Amino acid sequence: MSILEKVQLSNAQIDHVGIVVHDLDDALATYCGILGFRLLERLHAPDHGVEIAFLDAGRTTIELLSPTDQESGTARFLARRGEGSHHVCFAVPDIAQTLQELRAKGVRLIDETPRQGIHGLVAFLHPQAAHGVMIELLQKDRAHRLE
Amino acid sequence: MSILEKVQLSNAQIDHVGIVVHDLDDALATYCGILGFRLLERLHAPDHGVEIAFLDAGRTTIELLSPTDQESGTARFLARRGEGSHHVCFAVPDIAQTLQELRAKGVRLIDETPRQGIHGLVAFLHPQAAHGVMIELLQKDRAHRLE
Repeated sequence: MSILEKVQLSNAQIDHVGIVVHDLDDALATYCGILGFRLLERLHAPDHGVEIAFLDAGRTTIELLSPTDQESGTARFLARRGEGSHHVCFAVPDIAQTLQELRAKGVRLIDETPRQGIHGLVAFLHPQAAHGVMIELLQKDRAHRLE
Repeated sequence: MSILEKVQLSNAQIDHVGIVVHDLDDALATYCGILGFRLLERLHAPDHGVEIAFLDAGRTTIELLSPTDQESGTARFLARRGEGSHHVCFAVPDIAQTLQELRAKGVRLIDETPRQGIHGLVAFLHPQAAHGVMIELLQKDRAHRLE
Protein backbone atom coordinates (compact mmCIF):
# COMPACT_ATOMS: atom_id res chain seq x y z
CA MET A 1 0.00 0.00 0.00
CA SER A 2 1.46 3.35 -0.98
CA ILE A 3 1.58 6.09 1.60
CA LEU A 4 -0.99 7.99 -0.46
CA GLU A 5 -3.55 5.29 0.21
CA LYS A 6 -3.16 5.48 4.00
CA VAL A 7 -6.45 6.93 5.17
CA GLN A 8 -8.80 7.27 8.12
CA LEU A 9 -7.38 5.81 11.34
CA SER A 10 -4.40 3.92 9.91
CA ASN A 11 -2.09 6.57 11.42
CA ALA A 12 -4.04 7.03 14.66
CA GLN A 13 -2.28 6.79 18.03
CA ILE A 14 -4.26 5.85 21.10
CA ASP A 15 -4.36 8.86 23.40
CA HIS A 16 -6.51 7.74 26.32
CA VAL A 17 -9.18 5.38 27.57
CA GLY A 18 -12.17 7.20 29.08
CA ILE A 19 -13.93 5.73 32.11
CA VAL A 20 -17.10 7.21 33.55
CA VAL A 21 -17.54 7.10 37.34
CA HIS A 22 -20.07 8.35 39.87
CA ASP A 23 -17.63 10.10 42.19
CA LEU A 24 -14.17 11.27 41.15
CA ASP A 25 -12.65 11.29 44.66
CA ASP A 26 -13.86 7.76 45.21
CA ALA A 27 -12.50 6.61 41.82
CA LEU A 28 -9.11 8.29 42.47
CA ALA A 29 -8.91 6.52 45.84
CA THR A 30 -9.28 3.25 43.92
CA TYR A 31 -7.18 3.95 40.83
CA CYS A 32 -4.32 5.80 42.56
CA GLY A 33 -4.57 4.75 46.21
CA ILE A 34 -5.21 1.05 45.66
CA LEU A 35 -4.28 0.18 42.06
CA GLY A 36 -1.25 2.49 42.07
CA PHE A 37 -1.77 4.60 38.94
CA ARG A 38 -0.16 8.05 39.07
CA LEU A 39 -2.33 11.19 38.84
CA LEU A 40 -1.17 13.54 36.08
CA GLU A 41 -3.84 16.24 36.08
CA ARG A 42 -7.21 16.95 37.65
CA LEU A 43 -9.59 19.57 36.40
CA HIS A 44 -13.15 20.77 36.44
CA ALA A 45 -14.62 21.33 32.99
CA PRO A 46 -17.95 23.09 33.59
CA ASP A 47 -18.45 23.69 29.84
CA HIS A 48 -18.43 19.91 29.37
CA GLY A 49 -20.38 19.20 32.57
CA VAL A 50 -17.68 16.93 33.98
CA GLU A 51 -14.84 16.70 36.45
CA ILE A 52 -11.84 14.92 34.95
CA ALA A 53 -8.65 13.26 36.14
CA PHE A 54 -5.89 12.00 33.85
CA LEU A 55 -3.72 9.12 35.11
CA ASP A 56 -0.44 7.81 33.69
CA ALA A 57 -0.88 4.41 32.06
CA GLY A 58 2.43 3.96 30.27
CA ARG A 59 2.00 4.60 26.55
CA THR A 60 -1.42 6.13 27.13
CA THR A 61 -3.50 7.81 29.82
CA ILE A 62 -6.66 6.88 31.66
CA GLU A 63 -9.29 9.61 31.79
CA LEU A 64 -11.72 9.32 34.70
CA LEU A 65 -14.87 11.36 34.04
CA SER A 66 -17.54 12.23 36.55
CA PRO A 67 -20.60 14.22 35.44
CA THR A 68 -21.38 17.44 37.32
CA ASP A 69 -24.23 18.41 35.00
CA GLN A 70 -27.02 15.85 35.18
CA GLU A 71 -28.29 16.89 31.74
CA SER A 72 -24.95 16.08 30.06
CA GLY A 73 -24.42 13.15 27.73
CA THR A 74 -21.95 11.68 30.21
CA ALA A 75 -24.59 11.73 32.98
CA ARG A 76 -27.11 10.01 30.71
CA PHE A 77 -24.51 7.38 29.76
CA LEU A 78 -23.77 6.73 33.46
CA ALA A 79 -27.46 6.43 34.32
CA ARG A 80 -28.06 4.00 31.44
CA ARG A 81 -24.91 1.83 31.54
CA GLY A 82 -23.40 2.32 34.99
CA GLU A 83 -19.73 2.93 35.73
CA GLY A 84 -17.12 1.64 33.28
CA SER A 85 -15.60 2.21 29.85
CA HIS A 86 -17.01 5.29 28.17
CA HIS A 87 -14.82 5.97 25.11
CA VAL A 88 -11.45 5.30 23.51
CA CYS A 89 -9.61 8.33 22.17
CA PHE A 90 -7.23 8.34 19.20
CA ALA A 91 -4.97 11.24 18.32
CA VAL A 92 -4.90 12.07 14.63
CA PRO A 93 -2.74 14.66 12.86
CA ASP A 94 -5.61 16.35 10.96
CA ILE A 95 -9.04 15.84 12.49
CA ALA A 96 -10.90 17.71 9.73
CA GLN A 97 -9.40 15.45 7.08
CA THR A 98 -10.09 12.28 9.10
CA LEU A 99 -13.71 13.34 9.62
CA GLN A 100 -14.07 14.05 5.91
CA GLU A 101 -12.69 10.60 5.03
CA LEU A 102 -14.98 8.90 7.55
CA ARG A 103 -18.01 10.87 6.34
CA ALA A 104 -17.21 9.83 2.76
CA LYS A 105 -17.34 6.21 3.95
CA GLY A 106 -20.76 6.80 5.51
CA VAL A 107 -19.51 6.48 9.10
CA ARG A 108 -22.09 7.69 11.63
CA LEU A 109 -20.72 10.66 13.58
CA ILE A 110 -21.87 12.41 16.75
CA ASP A 111 -19.89 15.54 15.88
CA GLU A 112 -20.04 16.52 12.20
CA THR A 113 -17.36 19.17 12.77
CA PRO A 114 -14.53 19.32 15.33
CA ARG A 115 -15.11 21.23 18.58
CA GLN A 116 -12.76 22.47 21.26
CA GLY A 117 -12.00 19.87 23.94
CA ILE A 118 -9.68 19.92 26.96
CA HIS A 119 -6.47 19.12 25.06
CA GLY A 120 -7.35 20.05 21.50
CA LEU A 121 -10.00 19.73 18.80
CA VAL A 122 -12.24 16.70 19.31
CA ALA A 123 -15.05 14.83 17.58
CA PHE A 124 -16.92 11.70 18.62
CA LEU A 125 -18.02 8.87 16.35
CA HIS A 126 -21.36 7.25 17.16
CA PRO A 127 -20.98 3.95 19.05
CA GLN A 128 -22.87 2.26 16.20
CA ALA A 129 -19.92 3.14 13.94
CA ALA A 130 -17.57 0.88 15.92
CA HIS A 131 -19.56 -2.04 17.34
CA GLY A 132 -20.58 -0.37 20.57
CA VAL A 133 -17.36 1.56 21.24
CA MET A 134 -17.55 5.34 21.30
CA ILE A 135 -14.40 6.52 19.49
CA GLU A 136 -13.13 10.03 20.15
CA LEU A 137 -10.80 11.71 17.67
CA LEU A 138 -8.38 14.31 19.00
CA GLN A 139 -6.13 16.75 17.20
CA LYS A 140 -3.93 17.81 20.07
CA ASP A 141 -3.09 21.42 20.74
CA ARG A 142 0.65 21.95 20.32
CA ALA A 143 1.14 22.28 24.11
CA HIS A 144 -0.25 18.79 24.70
CA ARG A 145 1.67 16.90 22.02
CA LEU A 146 4.11 14.27 23.23
CA GLU A 147 6.27 14.44 20.12
CA MET B 1 8.75 8.38 46.47
CA SER B 2 11.67 5.93 46.49
CA ILE B 3 11.80 3.25 43.84
CA LEU B 4 11.14 0.66 46.56
CA GLU B 5 7.74 2.18 47.18
CA LYS B 6 6.64 1.88 43.54
CA VAL B 7 3.99 -0.80 43.65
CA GLN B 8 0.99 -2.29 41.90
CA LEU B 9 0.24 -0.68 38.54
CA SER B 10 2.51 2.36 38.78
CA ASN B 11 4.83 0.72 36.21
CA ALA B 12 2.08 -0.74 34.03
CA GLN B 13 2.03 -0.12 30.27
CA ILE B 14 -1.24 -0.35 28.40
CA ASP B 15 -1.06 -3.34 26.08
CA HIS B 16 -4.46 -3.44 24.41
CA VAL B 17 -8.12 -2.49 24.60
CA GLY B 18 -10.44 -5.49 24.30
CA ILE B 19 -13.73 -5.12 22.43
CA VAL B 20 -16.33 -7.88 22.29
CA VAL B 21 -18.29 -8.30 19.05
CA HIS B 22 -20.91 -10.69 17.69
CA ASP B 23 -19.17 -11.51 14.41
CA LEU B 24 -15.44 -11.09 13.82
CA ASP B 25 -15.65 -10.82 10.01
CA ASP B 26 -18.27 -8.14 10.34
CA ALA B 27 -16.21 -6.25 12.95
CA LEU B 28 -13.06 -6.47 10.80
CA ALA B 29 -14.99 -5.10 7.83
CA THR B 30 -15.81 -2.08 10.02
CA TYR B 31 -12.53 -1.58 11.90
CA CYS B 32 -10.18 -2.27 8.97
CA GLY B 33 -12.31 -1.76 5.86
CA ILE B 34 -14.10 1.40 6.97
CA LEU B 35 -12.19 2.90 9.91
CA GLY B 36 -8.80 2.00 8.44
CA PHE B 37 -7.07 0.17 11.31
CA ARG B 38 -4.42 -2.35 10.22
CA LEU B 39 -4.84 -6.05 11.04
CA LEU B 40 -1.80 -7.48 12.84
CA GLU B 41 -2.90 -11.01 13.70
CA ARG B 42 -6.02 -13.15 13.58
CA LEU B 43 -6.39 -16.38 15.45
CA HIS B 44 -8.84 -18.91 16.78
CA ALA B 45 -8.38 -19.72 20.48
CA PRO B 46 -10.65 -22.71 21.13
CA ASP B 47 -9.28 -23.11 24.67
CA HIS B 48 -10.60 -19.62 25.44
CA GLY B 49 -13.80 -20.05 23.42
CA VAL B 50 -13.07 -17.02 21.24
CA GLU B 51 -11.86 -15.88 17.85
CA ILE B 52 -9.51 -12.92 18.14
CA ALA B 53 -8.07 -10.22 15.90
CA PHE B 54 -5.38 -7.75 16.94
CA LEU B 55 -5.27 -4.38 15.18
CA ASP B 56 -2.54 -1.76 15.22
CA ALA B 57 -3.59 1.33 17.20
CA GLY B 58 -0.31 3.22 17.48
CA ARG B 59 1.13 2.79 20.97
CA THR B 60 -1.30 -0.02 21.73
CA THR B 61 -3.42 -2.61 19.98
CA ILE B 62 -7.14 -3.22 19.71
CA GLU B 63 -8.26 -6.78 20.42
CA LEU B 64 -11.56 -7.74 18.83
CA LEU B 65 -13.05 -10.80 20.54
CA SER B 66 -15.92 -12.91 19.29
CA PRO B 67 -17.15 -15.85 21.36
CA THR B 68 -17.26 -19.27 19.68
CA ASP B 69 -18.25 -21.09 22.88
CA GLN B 70 -21.65 -19.91 24.10
CA GLU B 71 -20.82 -21.05 27.65
CA SER B 72 -17.72 -18.81 27.87
CA GLY B 73 -17.50 -15.72 30.04
CA THR B 74 -17.11 -13.62 26.89
CA ALA B 75 -20.39 -14.99 25.47
CA ARG B 76 -22.20 -14.23 28.74
CA PHE B 77 -20.74 -10.70 28.77
CA LEU B 78 -21.92 -10.13 25.18
CA ALA B 79 -25.42 -11.44 25.94
CA ARG B 80 -25.70 -9.21 29.01
CA ARG B 81 -24.05 -5.98 27.83
CA GLY B 82 -24.05 -6.12 24.03
CA GLU B 83 -21.11 -5.25 21.80
CA GLY B 84 -18.49 -2.80 23.06
CA SER B 85 -15.59 -2.38 25.48
CA HIS B 86 -14.81 -5.60 27.31
CA HIS B 87 -11.48 -5.05 29.10
CA VAL B 88 -8.32 -2.93 29.23
CA CYS B 89 -5.04 -4.85 29.40
CA PHE B 90 -1.86 -3.63 31.11
CA ALA B 91 1.50 -5.30 30.69
CA VAL B 92 3.43 -5.68 33.95
CA PRO B 93 6.94 -7.03 34.41
CA ASP B 94 6.09 -9.54 37.15
CA ILE B 95 2.43 -10.60 37.22
CA ALA B 96 2.80 -12.80 40.32
CA GLN B 97 4.21 -9.90 42.32
CA THR B 98 1.55 -7.47 41.07
CA LEU B 99 -1.21 -9.94 41.99
CA GLN B 100 0.32 -10.39 45.44
CA GLU B 101 0.43 -6.61 45.97
CA LEU B 102 -3.16 -6.21 44.80
CA ARG B 103 -4.35 -9.11 46.95
CA ALA B 104 -2.64 -7.53 49.98
CA LYS B 105 -4.68 -4.38 49.29
CA GLY B 106 -7.89 -6.41 49.23
CA VAL B 107 -8.48 -5.96 45.49
CA ARG B 108 -11.14 -8.32 44.15
CA LEU B 109 -9.65 -10.65 41.55
CA ILE B 110 -11.21 -12.99 38.99
CA ASP B 111 -7.95 -14.96 38.67
CA GLU B 112 -6.17 -15.58 41.98
CA THR B 113 -3.18 -16.98 40.10
CA PRO B 114 -1.86 -16.21 36.59
CA ARG B 115 -2.90 -18.47 33.74
CA GLN B 116 -1.58 -18.90 30.21
CA GLY B 117 -3.11 -16.48 27.71
CA ILE B 118 -2.44 -15.87 24.01
CA HIS B 119 0.65 -13.68 24.47
CA GLY B 120 1.79 -14.57 28.00
CA LEU B 121 0.59 -15.08 31.56
CA VAL B 122 -2.66 -13.25 32.29
CA ALA B 123 -4.99 -12.53 35.19
CA PHE B 124 -8.20 -10.52 35.31
CA LEU B 125 -9.30 -8.18 38.09
CA HIS B 126 -13.01 -8.13 38.89
CA PRO B 127 -14.81 -5.14 37.31
CA GLN B 128 -15.87 -4.10 40.85
CA ALA B 129 -12.15 -3.53 41.59
CA ALA B 130 -11.97 -0.70 39.05
CA HIS B 131 -15.35 1.05 38.84
CA GLY B 132 -16.83 -1.19 36.19
CA VAL B 133 -13.72 -1.71 34.06
CA MET B 134 -12.37 -5.24 33.74
CA ILE B 135 -8.58 -4.87 33.97
CA GLU B 136 -6.41 -7.63 32.53
CA LEU B 137 -2.80 -8.00 33.66
CA LEU B 138 -0.34 -9.51 31.21
CA GLN B 139 3.22 -10.66 31.67
CA LYS B 140 4.27 -11.00 28.06
CA ASP B 141 6.13 -14.02 26.79
CA ARG B 142 9.58 -12.96 25.57
CA ALA B 143 8.53 -13.44 21.91
CA HIS B 144 5.77 -10.86 22.25
CA ARG B 145 7.69 -8.13 24.07
CA LEU B 146 8.13 -4.85 22.22
CA GLU B 147 11.26 -3.93 24.14
